[in-house]
Amino acid sequence: MSGQYIIAIDLGGQSAKIAIVDLDGQIRQKWSIHTNILDKGQHIVPDIIASIKDHLDLYQLEEKNLLGIGMGSPGSVNQQAGTVHGAFNLNWEDQQDLASAFHQAFDLPFYLENDANIAALGEQRQGAGHNQAHVVLITLGTGIGGGIIIDDQIYHGQQGSAGEVGHMILNKDSHIQCTCGRYGCFEALASATGLNNLAREYSQRFSGQSAIKEAIDSGQEVTAKEIIQASQDNDLFAQKIFDEYTSYLGQGCANLIDILTPACIILGGGISKAGDYLLKAVRAKCEQYVFKALEGQTEIVLAELGNDAALIGAAELVKTHERLTKA
Amino acid sequence: MSGQYIIAIDLGGQSAKIAIVDLDGQIRQKWSIHTNILDKGQHIVPDIIASIKDHLDLYQLEEKNLLGIGMGSPGSVNQQAGTVHGAFNLNWEDQQDLASAFHQAFDLPFYLENDANIAALGEQRQGAGHNQAHVVLITLGTGIGGGIIIDDQIYHGQQGSAGEVGHMILNKDSHIQCTCGRYGCFEALASATGLNNLAREYSQRFSGQSAIKEAIDSGQEVTAKEIIQASQDNDLFAQKIFDEYTSYLGQGCANLIDILTPACIILGGGISKAGDYLLKAVRAKCEQYVFKALEGQTEIVLAELGNDAALIGAAELVKTHERLTKA
Repeated sequence: MSGQYIIAIDLGGQSAKIAIVDLDGQIRQKWSIHTNILDKGQHIVPDIIASIKDHLDLYQLEEKNLLGIGMGSPGSVNQQAGTVHGAFNLNWEDQQDLASAFHQAFDLPFYLENDANIAALGEQRQGAGHNQAHVVLITLGTGIGGGIIIDDQIYHGQQGSAGEVGHMILNKDSHIQCTCGRYGCFEALASATGLNNLAREYSQRFSGQSAIKEAIDSGQEVTAKEIIQASQDNDLFAQKIFDEYTSYLGQGCANLIDILTPACIILGGGISKAGDYLLKAVRAKCEQYVFKALEGQTEIVLAELGNDAALIGAAELVKTHERLTKA
Repeated sequence: MSGQYIIAIDLGGQSAKIAIVDLDGQIRQKWSIHTNILDKGQHIVPDIIASIKDHLDLYQLEEKNLLGIGMGSPGSVNQQAGTVHGAFNLNWEDQQDLASAFHQAFDLPFYLENDANIAALGEQRQGAGHNQAHVVLITLGTGIGGGIIIDDQIYHGQQGSAGEVGHMILNKDSHIQCTCGRYGCFEALASATGLNNLAREYSQRFSGQSAIKEAIDSGQEVTAKEIIQASQDNDLFAQKIFDEYTSYLGQGCANLIDILTPACIILGGGISKAGDYLLKAVRAKCEQYVFKALEGQTEIVLAELGNDAALIGAAELVKTHERLTKA
């Protein structure tokens, strides 16, 4: 390979995805390694560094061909210091100084970000955000992650950790508890877990015929995908749950529009695979809840980059910083 | 008067406040004129212009002594064009081109903003915001107004009209309707009107002794001030309402912190005159609802500039633009 590239890393609890990305933001090579969380996660960073060195040799790339390294990590990231703490799924007990580790291994700029934030940056720059200045990404998975792009940059708030959209409270009187300890959070009601929470709550009150209700009542695990499919297949119980689910999702989107009025809200994560069926319902619900004068200003769309969003965002992070440094 | 000054205007439905502000942001002269909304509000702008010219003569100020004119207006403002529409309380039916009118009258830069936004800018620069980069103002009056400062500037969102914090929905299943038509908006539950809404709703369910409940049940008008005073004086009914009121206010603040994590949320408007009694209750409720990892990052404080916030913000608007123009 010749030309200029960026190394992008998306670190997760199961695997670390690594890519060589060109300056147009296209992934040119991509691989992943197992995240070894043994021994308090002390092998994670050395393993990533060794794998990068191997692949640079393989593709005959030298440091002079590289603009820098961008990385997304779970946990609470200090962007300036290049450190992370509270990444419990990596088995890291203490704060980790990733910047020092990478600077020792490579004579290259290194930029660290929270994983939800760089996924938002990736979608804004190369995906569904179409490079618009103000974009919000909502990731609908086991939880609800979020990233806010304002004026073309990741918004960090006062101390680096803004954008916890999953924990805005949509129903303070709800009996559904979030993993964070509060009740009625967006995440507790509108993530995949939220869909299950609503199903379990409503199964007490539904007396009709439903395969989904029967499965829940007999203690079986029912996935979000199965509930949504059953709703599409006219299971009345599943339809009722999906209606309530999209009401909360619409309310959450409407609140973000009232406050931030971004160009678009991008829905990502596992639930977003329900595609147009989800999108149509959420748009209708959001229209019910959003402030009338703002109607039509923000589009709700599906994410386009899938699992590559964070890798592409990590590369964009490097491009942005290097552009700013040179400006 | 000698030196350099700014003309600041705060246009409201009852009166237009006008001030001469120095470059340190201090009001040096201040007066107001009646807002004459007759004849489709066509006298409003000429009246303001004439009054400014009179006062410039009075204080022997010439245009060369002036940096520019900053103005806050109700309605939907187009900052770039200097136009406003939808200011129904001014009797303006069509879009108004304020920039052209002022440019015809004065050879000076003219900047127009939404009134809630410049009040937020005023408090951020010269009041309770202490010049911190990210600040949110919530004005608790008949409605709930809001202004968001991000990176030291008014945040406008995609089309100029972001920051409708009063219309985020805190309880989608509420029976309390907002003036906007939706149910369960922040404004419908946590403005002065909201306090009354909660009082009327709860009076159906309260059977104890209460002067406030009696007044409501007999159809008398009860002010927000009276309810809050009764709560302080141990009226159980009023205390119950105040508790629910501050729960919603705390929920609204917590949601803004979860999303934006500003340095502070500033509470202004009539209700904020309840002072420490309000502040203590809202802080406690907000702590119940905010995402734990963000606790302590955002301070909730009282506005400091009172009715001058918009005038001071209008002057800051001019300073910011002129600084940017010269940079």
